[in-house]
Amino acid sequence: MNRAVGVLGGMGPEATLDFFAKVLRRAGARSDQDHLRLLIDNNPGVPDRNAALSGRGESPGPVLAQMARGLQASGADFLVMVCNTAHAFEEDILNATTLPFVSLIEETRDAALREQPGLQRVGLLATSTCLGAGLYQSAFAPYGVSTLALEGSALARFMDLLYQIKAGDTGPRVRAEMRTLALELVDSGAEVLVAGCTEVPLVLDAQDVPVPLVNSTDVLVERTLQYARGLVPLPERSVKTPA
Amino acid sequence: MNRAVGVLGGMGPEATLDFFAKVLRRAGARSDQDHLRLLIDNNPGVPDRNAALSGRGESPGPVLAQMARGLQASGADFLVMVCNTAHAFEEDILNATTLPFVSLIEETRDAALREQPGLQRVGLLATSTCLGAGLYQSAFAPYGVSTLALEGSALARFMDLLYQIKAGDTGPRVRAEMRTLALELVDSGAEVLVAGCTEVPLVLDAQDVPVPLVNSTDVLVERTLQYARGLVPLPERSVKTPA
Repeated sequence: MNRAVGVLGGMGPEATLDFFAKVLRRAGARSDQDHLRLLIDNNPGVPDRNAALSGRGESPGPVLAQMARGLQASGADFLVMVCNTAHAFEEDILNATTLPFVSLIEETRDAALREQPGLQRVGLLATSTCLGAGLYQSAFAPYGVSTLALEGSALARFMDLLYQIKAGDTGPRVRAEMRTLALELVDSGAEVLVAGCTEVPLVLDAQDVPVPLVNSTDVLVERTLQYARGLVPLPERSVKTPA
Repeated sequence: MNRAVGVLGGMGPEATLDFFAKVLRRAGARSDQDHLRLLIDNNPGVPDRNAALSGRGESPGPVLAQMARGLQASGADFLVMVCNTAHAFEEDILNATTLPFVSLIEETRDAALREQPGLQRVGLLATSTCLGAGLYQSAFAPYGVSTLALEGSALARFMDLLYQIKAGDTGPRVRAEMRTLALELVDSGAEVLVAGCTEVPLVLDAQDVPVPLVNSTDVLVERTLQYARGLVPLPERSVKTPA
């Protein structure tokens, strides 16, 4: 019997759809009953993560906590969240339920470390908010890996692209601009790129860049299948702020 | 504020994914916050509807009831179910929660009646179980519309195709065979065809047939958007068996 997966989603909806589609593709199922049970809360009403962390809007924490509680009530055995930036509010989720929570940030870091043994410099395609919260930087630091990220006008262009993707534009112009930004990180010395925002894989593929690209959505899909099928032990709960 | 939609899904997962994708496409959203909140229980562990109604397996009723309760606990304001056949267990769902339930069968019937005023004969591309339970027949009867359905070996071929679609095959051979079966109903006098199984639209398009094709998934998508946005009143609850 597979474990039921609770999915905190809607940030944005296209990324959640992408995750759902990839879980179905990779499940290798031959009948309905071979598939995973996914309980998906596609909640586009989660307050804007970037606005909140820059002090321009309400915190998504309470809404994420309520979603987590609902997913537990519906029968989820563990939780995942299809949004890198929202992991800045991971503690609100951990404090809201008794379920194991699979960190997209830690899983993506681990995939990057597996991808390139001896990795020294990783390039982050991540939101200004994800970068500002230091999510990937603090995940990589204990492994002696330094991080490179877009800055200034390049970061502003990246953020603008993300909102265009959220508005439904995944066309060739957006793809070309994302590739240009990715190549800037490679030119700066990134040995591996992390697509550390679930909108990025919607417009950037491994063949677009000359170094390994670790796609956070793909990582989450693979790990979700492994956790749900009991092939690997679920992460221990590490609540930093006790409830 | 849009109403949150509770989705009983996973029957099969591809049909639920199709529904989710179409709701996103047709929402016309320009930012995350314009989208609908969809609470999706993609539960492929719902006992096989066809096996249950033919006496070869357990009833899906209790599992559907538990899913409905979970969706209500998670914050759903009304329920939809992305599976025609499972509507044979609608009473279990109605008895499990206090939420309005949008009937895919009734909505699809209404769409067929709107499509062709004066409709007399409708062709049903529906499972043997859906046909055996008389779901569409009893929905159309009060409107003086008679129904035509596949029978015998044609129905057996149709059922075989559905399980091939559920196993991931939506290729040209499956498409061609589905079209052949649809044309048999047209030859028998169907003025409108109802794709009354959510797997059918995965392999059959309106341009494949010479009469109007009413796609139950598309109908549910459009009506879900209207109900969620408060553009039409939600259906009254009509519990036939009081809880």
